[in-house]
Amino acid sequence: MDEAGVRTTAEIDALARAAREASRDVSTLSREDKDAVLLALAAAIGAHEREILEANAADLAAAEANGVTGAKLKRLRLDGPALAQMRDGLAQLASLDDPVGEVTRDDRVASGLRVRKVRTPLGVVCMIYEARPGVTIDAFALCFKAGNACVLKGGREANRSNALLARIARGVLRERGVPEGAITQLTTSDRDLIRHLLTLDGLIDLVIPRGGETLIRFVHEHSRVPTVQHFHGVCHVYVDASADLERALEIVATGKASAPATCNATECALVHEAVAPAFVPMLAQRCAADGIELRGCPRTGELAGAQPVVGARDDDFGTEFLDLILACRVVGSFDEAIAHIRAHGSDHTDAIVTGDESSGERFRREVQSSCVLVNASTRFNDGFQLGLGAEIGISTTRLHAYGPMGLRELTVERYVVDGEGQTR
Amino acid sequence: MDEAGVRTTAEIDALARAAREASRDVSTLSREDKDAVLLALAAAIGAHEREILEANAADLAAAEANGVTGAKLKRLRLDGPALAQMRDGLAQLASLDDPVGEVTRDDRVASGLRVRKVRTPLGVVCMIYEARPGVTIDAFALCFKAGNACVLKGGREANRSNALLARIARGVLRERGVPEGAITQLTTSDRDLIRHLLTLDGLIDLVIPRGGETLIRFVHEHSRVPTVQHFHGVCHVYVDASADLERALEIVATGKASAPATCNATECALVHEAVAPAFVPMLAQRCAADGIELRGCPRTGELAGAQPVVGARDDDFGTEFLDLILACRVVGSFDEAIAHIRAHGSDHTDAIVTGDESSGERFRREVQSSCVLVNASTRFNDGFQLGLGAEIGISTTRLHAYGPMGLRELTVERYVVDGEGQTR
Repeated sequence: MDEAGVRTTAEIDALARAAREASRDVSTLSREDKDAVLLALAAAIGAHEREILEANAADLAAAEANGVTGAKLKRLRLDGPALAQMRDGLAQLASLDDPVGEVTRDDRVASGLRVRKVRTPLGVVCMIYEARPGVTIDAFALCFKAGNACVLKGGREANRSNALLARIARGVLRERGVPEGAITQLTTSDRDLIRHLLTLDGLIDLVIPRGGETLIRFVHEHSRVPTVQHFHGVCHVYVDASADLERALEIVATGKASAPATCNATECALVHEAVAPAFVPMLAQRCAADGIELRGCPRTGELAGAQPVVGARDDDFGTEFLDLILACRVVGSFDEAIAHIRAHGSDHTDAIVTGDESSGERFRREVQSSCVLVNASTRFNDGFQLGLGAEIGISTTRLHAYGPMGLRELTVERYVVDGEGQTR
Repeated sequence: MDEAGVRTTAEIDALARAAREASRDVSTLSREDKDAVLLALAAAIGAHEREILEANAADLAAAEANGVTGAKLKRLRLDGPALAQMRDGLAQLASLDDPVGEVTRDDRVASGLRVRKVRTPLGVVCMIYEARPGVTIDAFALCFKAGNACVLKGGREANRSNALLARIARGVLRERGVPEGAITQLTTSDRDLIRHLLTLDGLIDLVIPRGGETLIRFVHEHSRVPTVQHFHGVCHVYVDASADLERALEIVATGKASAPATCNATECALVHEAVAPAFVPMLAQRCAADGIELRGCPRTGELAGAQPVVGARDDDFGTEFLDLILACRVVGSFDEAIAHIRAHGSDHTDAIVTGDESSGERFRREVQSSCVLVNASTRFNDGFQLGLGAEIGISTTRLHAYGPMGLRELTVERYVVDGEGQTR
């Protein structure tokens, strides 16, 4: 609903109630029925390709006229390959196991009761995100496969694309006898209405904000519905005294250069002083070759020799650069590296490169980020790379889901108990 | 800390920071070290019994002078058996497995990385509860065993008891070299300070409000820290057309009478019309015998014969009576029972009594409360009865934990990844 834009809180309430009602039906759909919807949606996106590209072209033209440029404009764009990827994503999701009904515990307790824990959908998931129309279908599909209804609010620059995609999804739901309230796409930009939406904790079970820090803070500040946050990633690689330096160089340099603006990019290298005289010059040279600006502590600067190093300011540590920039600090000990990560990290992803298993084990235990890696790149913290098959985001909230959220993380476990008349 | 009562937000900040610092140490303690603290605390409570009873007597006298009576006064009271139970609880907790470090997934993904999911403490858990000094030691012990620091704010009537119990716990921690910030007991009653505490989402990971609805609403409204709620339980028993009526009678009557004021007490019986003519008179007679006031729909009244039935008002359905009162409604079908539970239930606990496995299966699937029982009393929804070994409360939030929360629910799973130099 809401292709035309809701105008009152009563309309928001009605949409949320319809989502709640729909969620009850979606929660009991069989895997086959859910997968059939996903595959039919993939086909419908193919069949409506021209209209989707036209709607998106209108969004792009309006955005450009409003002065939107660069990365933001690029995120807004849909093209043939992007739509093909959308369809592939739906087919892949249809091939994944259904988390709903999974039994995670099954035993008998002293009273003779059989106690099971069974995965069950969360209910209604609300996602608030920026102007990336690809997210609309992704988010609906993940929520739906996990048995949830969703309420989506994308960036307004993508309103035409999002409204059409949601209309196509609802057409598929209608044809297959599933309530259309399984997907609601809000196109309003009225902040008061969004704030109202965030107070509907009786109707919405989870809010996931995805996007820049301003968006996340807005949701966090106003939501009475539980939120799972995907804050920025300030990911560290600690190069231990026993590290294989060639390996460390690859891990650090590709951790930044392969995708400098992602949340799992490496932002800071911490180098043990025992290997710093050998490693820092290698790193400085590699950064220069890869076009990475190296912002180093004074000792980094001393060791870099002829290679360019920008003197790091205090606030370069703890910053997500979202660009080809890497901070570097020489540390006196393992403990100093841990203390740095605790002070400047974001609980997202941190890695150690070490040849010493006892250092690896200490790092695994003492650094309690959502993903801790030993001898591998921070860029592996991603639902697909870690075998989840799909991902709705990477949570840095230490509750419910910590790290990549896939289908399972869109469910919760409840108790199902069977007896033969037991009483207390 | 804060035995004397903090007075400024800066003091609250300092205590929360100390808790955060302590949580890092507690998170890496071995099971042996944690259990030793719990057992030493049990011993210390025994050694300080006289002082604890004196402090509690002072709380009781002050409360009585302020007009506190009845159940509230009873909850405030500690005596020899209550302290013995506290010590037993600590010993029992020491005997439970440590959830921290439990590996819930361990496999290799395509890139060759070994991916594990490992249970890790939440960090700092804040609990806000009413004047029940027993909760102070329980809550600390559960949080601590699961590797967390805790910030506790109990009802002010129990301040003397709570402050002394916390001081004893800190003495034990100090002797065993664990930072005292592992337990903070706030005794302030300044609502502005509590509100400030609830905004410290960088320092506190979870808030658990436990108590009446006003307290829970206050926390929910002001907290920016994620909360897991333990709302009221409006628990139903549906007596299906195929139910064994003797069994149904036991389940319904004991579900109320065995502990009328608990959250898992049965509040409402829904009776299929096919068995209502036989069952309602049995139920009415049993209620009269057990001193339960039966509030029935008009049909219940007609069928009850000579037994007393109070006519139910609309708002008797969906009410947690916390007393020897039971609502009863005759329904025309299974679907009507489900619709009633959806409309009036609280997602806490609902049961069916049935002789028909297909009805049982539909009920398990379509009623998605935190605990659904087939042929057993609603009163089994309790961490001890369901085999968790301990319980910090029963969550009705469909996120993180849904149902009884034990030690595992005070942890979260994170990713630990091992490679041999993999990069992307």
